[in-house]
Amino acid sequence: MSRHSKVAFQGERGAYSEQAAAALFGEDVELVPCPTFDEVFALVEDDTCERGVVPAENSLAGSIHRTYDLLLRHNLYIVAEHNLRVSHCLIAHPGVELSAIRRVYSHPQALAQCEYSLHELGEVEVIATHDTAGSVKLIQEQGLRDAAAIAGEGAATVYGMAILRRQFEDEKTNYTRFIALARESVNPEGESKTSLAFAGRNEPGLLFRCLSAFALRDIDLTKIESRPIRGVPWEYIFYLDFVGSMAEERCRRAVEQLKEMATFVRIFGSYPRARAAWLSSE
Amino acid sequence: MSRHSKVAFQGERGAYSEQAAAALFGEDVELVPCPTFDEVFALVEDDTCERGVVPAENSLAGSIHRTYDLLLRHNLYIVAEHNLRVSHCLIAHPGVELSAIRRVYSHPQALAQCEYSLHELGEVEVIATHDTAGSVKLIQEQGLRDAAAIAGEGAATVYGMAILRRQFEDEKTNYTRFIALARESVNPEGESKTSLAFAGRNEPGLLFRCLSAFALRDIDLTKIESRPIRGVPWEYIFYLDFVGSMAEERCRRAVEQLKEMATFVRIFGSYPRARAAWLSSE
Repeated sequence: MSRHSKVAFQGERGAYSEQAAAALFGEDVELVPCPTFDEVFALVEDDTCERGVVPAENSLAGSIHRTYDLLLRHNLYIVAEHNLRVSHCLIAHPGVELSAIRRVYSHPQALAQCEYSLHELGEVEVIATHDTAGSVKLIQEQGLRDAAAIAGEGAATVYGMAILRRQFEDEKTNYTRFIALARESVNPEGESKTSLAFAGRNEPGLLFRCLSAFALRDIDLTKIESRPIRGVPWEYIFYLDFVGSMAEERCRRAVEQLKEMATFVRIFGSYPRARAAWLSSE
Repeated sequence: MSRHSKVAFQGERGAYSEQAAAALFGEDVELVPCPTFDEVFALVEDDTCERGVVPAENSLAGSIHRTYDLLLRHNLYIVAEHNLRVSHCLIAHPGVELSAIRRVYSHPQALAQCEYSLHELGEVEVIATHDTAGSVKLIQEQGLRDAAAIAGEGAATVYGMAILRRQFEDEKTNYTRFIALARESVNPEGESKTSLAFAGRNEPGLLFRCLSAFALRDIDLTKIESRPIRGVPWEYIFYLDFVGSMAEERCRRAVEQLKEMATFVRIFGSYPRARAAWLSSE
């Protein structure tokens, strides 16, 4: 990635996705905020941006199905991953006290993750917005001094706002796995992971036969999830991540065997394996 | 279930969970609204209610991890399931026109599912609440004639309110699988399903060996999902549903074999298999 590369992320300046993008590509690239997941995929696909960063799963909410739907619809590759510890802050104008807060703005998911903390604030109105960092921008721009927003620390910095409370989330072990997208696949060195999706007629033993391709070659799985295919009764799609790269002979052979068993296989890409968020000291 | 049995559900009167509870147990039982999932589990555990109804997964949002966490923490059994087609309505006071709406209230999840539809309403403030039916109750009780709520048709009926728009959700194939809980397991007749969780040291082939218990006996799986165990690096818990009942010899043998492979197995129960929502004519 060169100094002037563009990286698209979903959300406003200061969003968790921007934090993940900066962690993956450094501060020198140009980070491009996008209002929707769809736009991140579109900007990478039409070559406006070299990379795009979107969340793939959250430790509390599970897989972000929107991201998987878009992965299936677009011809992009996963080229990197990053596990981000998500810690929400309650953010307001500098000088505003907690007792002055009458309204709290944030993304529905973040509001849900802070349900008990919000309850403890007493009589405040809770207002859903399109994104966490965007709510900080909103109360800053509109000069709302009786309001606070829930967002990451980065959003407070970007908009020059103050942090009233840290670790505002109910469940402290909250992390999100972000993935980086590109038009071309990469050939990762060192410990790698590969993500793919496959589907097959749901009959006893289908998954077992498909997994044999990996088990017989001692390939370690890090994620498996079944999901009914919309509008197609009894058909399932599986999302699977394994340790290893498509540059390795045994992984290529495993996928070849998988293709014999499944009716559909799509490789999303091989990429360097990120450190697990729950092992980090953050 | 007798005429005077009590069934706890999460949410206010008119909630989707109440619809699911009524579909499962008929209109003659006493349906008991509970503010939280925790309370549903508690009321069944302390024998206040014979049954409890909670959502287990949604076709758009995936598994409801809160429900699985509570299943692991409590000693209750799954005794029934119901697939409910979720169709959101935009609900307001009778006589109020769409053009008069300035604010929309609902649960964060429902708001997220109606993002595009809300966008098309133009300049409306979107306010997050604790539940869908509860927002209808709120605008009814407070006489808010410039506000609407997003909830199921049942909520409009319960609170005597009018439906401004039907099928307000962005994605029409939206269904939620609800489960019914009880203190004692049941012995289902006809086609059955069994739900369980298991865990094991993450090493290559673990899942494959565990699934062999089912594949070698031609037992069909309907759900598999891996989830990292919080605070325990590299350990995973798997949620698995299969077709069959623990009353069947081959299923009991499969679970016996699973216990040899896994470090932890917990049977949530066997129950009659529900018709798939995506096959129903609703």
